[in-house]
Amino acid sequence: MITPEAIIFDLDGVLTDTAEYHFLAWKQLADELGIPFGRKDNEQLRGIPRRRSLDYILALDGRSISNAEAEELMTRKNNHYRTLIKQVSTKDLLPGVATLLAEIKQAGLKVAIASASKNSPQVLNQLGICDQLDALAHGGSVVRQKPHPDLFLHTARELGVPSAHCIVVEDAAAGIDAAHAAGMTAVGIGPAERVGAAEVVLPNLDGVSLADLLSATTWRVVEPHFDPAKQHHRETIFTIGNGFLGTRGSLEERYPGDRQATLVHGLYDKAPVVFTTLANAPDWTSLEIWINGRRFDMTQPGIRDYVRWLDLRDGTLNRRLVWEIDAETAVELRWTRLTNLAHQHDVAVQLSITAVKNNLTCRLRARLDGHVENHGNLHWHTMQEESDHAQASLLLQTRHTKKQLALSMNLGMTSAKVRPCDCPGTPGLESDFTLDEGQWTSFQKMIAIYSSRETNEPLAAARKRSYELLGLPFEKLLAQNRAAWDAFWQDSDVIIEGDDEAQIALRHALFQLRIAAPTHDDTVSISAKTLSGFGYSGHVFWDNEIFVLPFFTYTQPQLAKNMLLYRHHTLPGARRKAAKNGYGGAQYAWESAETGDEVTPTWVPHFSDPTQLVRIWTGDIQIHISADIAYALKQFWQVTGDDDFWRDVAAPIVLETAVFWGDRAEYEDGRFAVRDVIGPDEYHDHVDNNAFTNFILRWHLQTAQETLRWLQIHAPQQADTLTQALDLSDERLAHWQNIADNIIFLHDKESGLIEQFEGFFQRKKVDWPKYANTEKSMQVLLGIEGANKHQVLKQADVIALFCLFPNAFDAKTQQANWDYYEPITDHVYGSSLGPSMHAWAACLMNQPELGYEHFMRAARADLLNVRGNAGDGIHAASAGGLWQAVVFGFAGLRLAEEGHTINPRLPAHWQRVSFKFYRQGKQQIVNISADQPILAAS
Amino acid sequence: MITPEAIIFDLDGVLTDTAEYHFLAWKQLADELGIPFGRKDNEQLRGIPRRRSLDYILALDGRSISNAEAEELMTRKNNHYRTLIKQVSTKDLLPGVATLLAEIKQAGLKVAIASASKNSPQVLNQLGICDQLDALAHGGSVVRQKPHPDLFLHTARELGVPSAHCIVVEDAAAGIDAAHAAGMTAVGIGPAERVGAAEVVLPNLDGVSLADLLSATTWRVVEPHFDPAKQHHRETIFTIGNGFLGTRGSLEERYPGDRQATLVHGLYDKAPVVFTTLANAPDWTSLEIWINGRRFDMTQPGIRDYVRWLDLRDGTLNRRLVWEIDAETAVELRWTRLTNLAHQHDVAVQLSITAVKNNLTCRLRARLDGHVENHGNLHWHTMQEESDHAQASLLLQTRHTKKQLALSMNLGMTSAKVRPCDCPGTPGLESDFTLDEGQWTSFQKMIAIYSSRETNEPLAAARKRSYELLGLPFEKLLAQNRAAWDAFWQDSDVIIEGDDEAQIALRHALFQLRIAAPTHDDTVSISAKTLSGFGYSGHVFWDNEIFVLPFFTYTQPQLAKNMLLYRHHTLPGARRKAAKNGYGGAQYAWESAETGDEVTPTWVPHFSDPTQLVRIWTGDIQIHISADIAYALKQFWQVTGDDDFWRDVAAPIVLETAVFWGDRAEYEDGRFAVRDVIGPDEYHDHVDNNAFTNFILRWHLQTAQETLRWLQIHAPQQADTLTQALDLSDERLAHWQNIADNIIFLHDKESGLIEQFEGFFQRKKVDWPKYANTEKSMQVLLGIEGANKHQVLKQADVIALFCLFPNAFDAKTQQANWDYYEPITDHVYGSSLGPSMHAWAACLMNQPELGYEHFMRAARADLLNVRGNAGDGIHAASAGGLWQAVVFGFAGLRLAEEGHTINPRLPAHWQRVSFKFYRQGKQQIVNISADQPILAAS
Repeated sequence: MITPEAIIFDLDGVLTDTAEYHFLAWKQLADELGIPFGRKDNEQLRGIPRRRSLDYILALDGRSISNAEAEELMTRKNNHYRTLIKQVSTKDLLPGVATLLAEIKQAGLKVAIASASKNSPQVLNQLGICDQLDALAHGGSVVRQKPHPDLFLHTARELGVPSAHCIVVEDAAAGIDAAHAAGMTAVGIGPAERVGAAEVVLPNLDGVSLADLLSATTWRVVEPHFDPAKQHHRETIFTIGNGFLGTRGSLEERYPGDRQATLVHGLYDKAPVVFTTLANAPDWTSLEIWINGRRFDMTQPGIRDYVRWLDLRDGTLNRRLVWEIDAETAVELRWTRLTNLAHQHDVAVQLSITAVKNNLTCRLRARLDGHVENHGNLHWHTMQEESDHAQASLLLQTRHTKKQLALSMNLGMTSAKVRPCDCPGTPGLESDFTLDEGQWTSFQKMIAIYSSRETNEPLAAARKRSYELLGLPFEKLLAQNRAAWDAFWQDSDVIIEGDDEAQIALRHALFQLRIAAPTHDDTVSISAKTLSGFGYSGHVFWDNEIFVLPFFTYTQPQLAKNMLLYRHHTLPGARRKAAKNGYGGAQYAWESAETGDEVTPTWVPHFSDPTQLVRIWTGDIQIHISADIAYALKQFWQVTGDDDFWRDVAAPIVLETAVFWGDRAEYEDGRFAVRDVIGPDEYHDHVDNNAFTNFILRWHLQTAQETLRWLQIHAPQQADTLTQALDLSDERLAHWQNIADNIIFLHDKESGLIEQFEGFFQRKKVDWPKYANTEKSMQVLLGIEGANKHQVLKQADVIALFCLFPNAFDAKTQQANWDYYEPITDHVYGSSLGPSMHAWAACLMNQPELGYEHFMRAARADLLNVRGNAGDGIHAASAGGLWQAVVFGFAGLRLAEEGHTINPRLPAHWQRVSFKFYRQGKQQIVNISADQPILAAS
Repeated sequence: MITPEAIIFDLDGVLTDTAEYHFLAWKQLADELGIPFGRKDNEQLRGIPRRRSLDYILALDGRSISNAEAEELMTRKNNHYRTLIKQVSTKDLLPGVATLLAEIKQAGLKVAIASASKNSPQVLNQLGICDQLDALAHGGSVVRQKPHPDLFLHTARELGVPSAHCIVVEDAAAGIDAAHAAGMTAVGIGPAERVGAAEVVLPNLDGVSLADLLSATTWRVVEPHFDPAKQHHRETIFTIGNGFLGTRGSLEERYPGDRQATLVHGLYDKAPVVFTTLANAPDWTSLEIWINGRRFDMTQPGIRDYVRWLDLRDGTLNRRLVWEIDAETAVELRWTRLTNLAHQHDVAVQLSITAVKNNLTCRLRARLDGHVENHGNLHWHTMQEESDHAQASLLLQTRHTKKQLALSMNLGMTSAKVRPCDCPGTPGLESDFTLDEGQWTSFQKMIAIYSSRETNEPLAAARKRSYELLGLPFEKLLAQNRAAWDAFWQDSDVIIEGDDEAQIALRHALFQLRIAAPTHDDTVSISAKTLSGFGYSGHVFWDNEIFVLPFFTYTQPQLAKNMLLYRHHTLPGARRKAAKNGYGGAQYAWESAETGDEVTPTWVPHFSDPTQLVRIWTGDIQIHISADIAYALKQFWQVTGDDDFWRDVAAPIVLETAVFWGDRAEYEDGRFAVRDVIGPDEYHDHVDNNAFTNFILRWHLQTAQETLRWLQIHAPQQADTLTQALDLSDERLAHWQNIADNIIFLHDKESGLIEQFEGFFQRKKVDWPKYANTEKSMQVLLGIEGANKHQVLKQADVIALFCLFPNAFDAKTQQANWDYYEPITDHVYGSSLGPSMHAWAACLMNQPELGYEHFMRAARADLLNVRGNAGDGIHAASAGGLWQAVVFGFAGLRLAEEGHTINPRLPAHWQRVSFKFYRQGKQQIVNISADQPILAAS
């Protein structure tokens, strides 16, 4: 997120229209030559360079001329033009321009004109806006014209504003491309066919506000400076991916201490402590450059005009900079990194090199780097490595689980001579070449990646696809990928007007969720840190079902289905866990990976003294996960109406986990208790009758009965099968109902207060003012046992029930508990799951401004790294929670039996919220304006 | 250890002497030419080739001739010779030859003659021994003559015996070199100045037995075949080193699954579970070869004549083989690897390449491979890497402890063109060259290694030394190293005649101990697995003081002193441990590394279910280590008489650890108990009043009092200092004496039995026949708790006391306990410390044959991998125990107040044992012959 500091306008077609004057000048020349030329002919000249326009006119009369004569005629035409534009005056400013320029200046932003036309100073003078300009640049200032970025870069330097902070307003495709090449965002003026590559497209500037221009930046996460100290954070937020793999944004040339990773779904290997972890795959991005014998390294002096940005519209990660190697030598470098959403085995990085100053001797080395690690642990053995003059390949195998991964690369259709690089464990291709001053070239490192999870011959598959990629221009790959992303955003974007920070954070969150969602694989799911970091080792938690899935269920049901099927495939692991603990049915793992067996670490080193081990109990007793999964299944059915899925996949899970619950609840004097658990608030372990657990257990046992009744009516055969297989006798069903009726739920009807677990209200109160300005979690400050003894929550527990079951509690109960629990929750450094849930709940309390505070805490968890741990990976639950907070909280969406309702409670400064979702296969559109809070359903 | 199968004799000067006939032939020619020539002139021709001999004779008369004339004269001389040797007959066989040949044939070994002389068939015929020969080869059979190995290799092929199984008997230096180049061992006939490179040197064959020839193999550990399945074992036993570093015998071209390691003393990094571990240093051996585009790889077909051997005399690791690349192409490759004992920062590997068949296009790549690991864990960050056309360097830093290690390499004074290899993390040098058939070349990869423990600028130091090495021929490096090794063996060799297996095992053990002993560093010591493997992570145990140190104390006191000073430097860690446990004084760590703090892992994964953790108690309660160190200090003083060391270093340790003991012993009803400990027998933990612990504690407290008395007389100032610092009040001393007088020691005077700890005799008896043929330890078979409940010992506990305190127990006590404990000890798969201790104890019982059984169990622990875990590293305690078993056990050495006594109890088949040691700086020689068991002191 960067603050725009300058708007750079193209002149012609944007601020004014000199087309008429050009026509008149050509017409005058044609008349002089005796060639008939009219307005209709002139239409053919739009966007056509001068010389070709002249040739067109001459051709009308069948003439052709020498270059010298042409020069003379073009000079003559230009003179006519220069005379004509003396008529230009303030009235030629296009509608809206004057107001807009005034607003920009008023807001303190700089304004510049960057026009190819050398006549632009004169025109601007006559338009009477020169005094509003901070800089004026025309084509004569630079050698290379648009679509090269030179003119805009020159303008930015004149303004003294880093290019990342500039917005370009342009009406030509080449201008949009030039802006992007300069690392700027673009507003396109004109039809989408022409300027659709811009972040914002407007027909003209009439009625356009500065806010409209600034919204161009909400599709882009920008890093304006390279800072080695922030590497890990930037790597996480610049993760790109495609549902098959995620690649962190470490840099192609690598830097000491970086935490490079490509994580591929399902490629688990055994690991100490955490049982199993996703094995960090080879670094496919590796690109090293030597210019005049010096290796490119941004920690050395001479780097300027640096900008790196993640384009959320198409998932490309881009970087550009100029390297001033010495006083006489400079080179411009541009990278575009891509993980193809349209074909998940393709990844690529393009490097463009321009000799800005002096002639260059260059060496490029592109490797598949198998020397990778998971935090100092190795998970691969090299099985095969090879490189020839066209292709390099690497085949690896995980050390313990024996899964194979193959990568095969080429360098695109380059004219440079390429030779193999056979460095051990990291095969690649190399090229030596020269560039004269002003020359440029580019290499496309195109890589195909296959694992033994998709094919028995991953190396052959990778070699074959790499060969296919060799025939595919990089632009084609970009276009395929962009089309797939356009389709995603078409369904899943959420528009927030009036709050660009919230807008960009939400888009980044949805982007990060999409790239982690398995596109073609229903045996994996989204882990707590997606595929963007080593945190939680790729394990799947309730985070997915309760925080992440709703976004997919509502906007991308097929992806949600894949992830719910993961729980179906891992049901055997859940059965094993239940059996191991002495229960019937299925008990899902708190942390789940390949098989569904419990993989929560049992012991971990203590955070303050790593020589001491801390027993982690969540894998043993945080049991609400099984009901959370049932909840997500039910929600999917409710939203999609997919009866087949409900019957075949969901119902068996709901019923088999219910069998576990029936065994787990303990009968005590006419009531049922659930003792020795951990609820969502993990600061307290070994507690009895946790409110969240017992409530959702009750819901689960009731839902299970409804499920069986539904099956008996709509799918009697399945009902019979499950009744037999799970022994769903009348006694068992009666037992379930008995539990549901009599489970302990510590709700004081008088006060409305729900006690989080037995004895919570007796625990010590925290001296909150003492901890007002801390930067540590309450668990660190009080100690593990200390937090356990106090009334302090890691995250919502009772409050979470109000969000998940909004109809289950009256307003008094909600308010009483909100007032009790919200102030004693560790919002800042407790669980990252908390803030978005509290944002949502605050809306239920009609406190959107307080909700907004919580919302922004979640929004900044990754982008601003407010919790300090974003380097470990994206906070997936927080990202999913952002969507829920907007849609269920601020917009107040609720489904009814038929249709849905909206109950908007927007923060005061939000002007508009708009989103779509699918209800039973039909897309619904919600559009809420602050001034006109009316819902518009499709 | 390999079995010799063939003896290959040189002819002239070995079996017969044709010198007289050559003289007569030259004389005849000289006479014909009219040149005066006598016996005195003839002396000048010894070992001189024919043409130069002729020139010498002609020069006597001032003549010179053309090549053609010379050819004619040499033919004439040879004809004279052939006529003369018709006189040769059986009487020309040299003394002893006939008997020796008969003995060899009798023993079933093959006999061959390999003589350069083409006349040898005729000579042999007349000597009348042709029917005793299995093969006969002469110079005409091969192109390249000695010192090239071709003739011997040809002979071995004729015999059908692998070259590793051949012994060569030679009288010329070139012949010895040729034998070694062929991978054979050599017996040199003649003066040491000429044939000293041979493993055995004899004046002639008169009175020589086959055993004398076979003893040539006892300086060499041989691998006759490459077997990838045995890699880890071979890597350990082929470890070479120099007291600074140890390098496992993984192969230069590396193979999948190998466990390459170079471990450098003191380069510890933090590690999970084991707290700290020696970080595996870069692979300096790395050498890759491509011939005609194919990478050399022994898992591919075409490898023949393979042999690899460790030369114990100079610590070089050698390999030779022929690679038949295809039907038309073959190459001979020879490697010699060296870690310079004379200059500990030098390491080197020489590769010789000979084009045996066809012309070759070769590529050589020599790297410093920084891509190394400790069992899947990474410990280094690359700080700097560089390569130019002469040198490549690598600077690394440990990830947690920030220790630096630098390596710098060159490729010797090669004439081939060398280019840099800048593979990331593994810089090196490369060369492309060609060899015509018959041509050969060699490269010397010379590397200097420095760490930040010796210098603040390790990279500068490594670069400088590498540059110096570039000016040093490899032969010079070899000679320096050999001289240092000669000096070591001069003092420390132990000769066992009559048992070549025992001889080679003992030498290998002493070799492995020497390379692990810090030569110039007194802040490190020998760990349980030396520097030869990852086992026990480089931690130091009591193994060092009780099993390893005596060898050094007796034969290399300076090295022993370095290691005892390590305990002095780590005394602060011992103080911290005592304080942490609530005691005064110093309590040494059970496992000790850099600081002396306890680094025994607290929890380790269970051997049968790695998801379960097992609590390791030795770091908490195996407390006898502190007394073991005092014992070693006292022994050092007794042997060396080094009063300064005793006063300044040893006494403070003995007294400060005694303070700990005084606090640790618990007063109970007039007696003192030591409860909750682990004794040497670690199958039983949390035991009370362990015999070993309590006895050595008593000894320690008595020794402490004697120490203070000695100081009061000989160093009153030090006595005062320590008395004040440690509060050695009269009360404390009286308390110590009280403990010594009243410590519980469960010795039943009636039966003589000493109960290992309270209640041991009540534990369950093991049904031993049930476990007769197992290949697992009793702890695995019975389970950890099961073994704890049974009367089964991991190793000697009570019995160990008899070895360490031979005067403390009467014969009856010794015998009764031996009879009780020896049969219930897990000798085969229990502790590797056990067998050598039992061998020693058996000698005390006058059972040398039983002792020999135990002895060979220890002798085979590494060389034959009988315990199956040699891949983890050398069993240092077992190696040191071998020396003690021979010297203290079989030879029965005991020191007296003045001088020493010998009480030989040799196994029946041992004919001679001979060794040296230093007593108070004066070398003593012990020589025991079976038939003449008399000691010969210096």
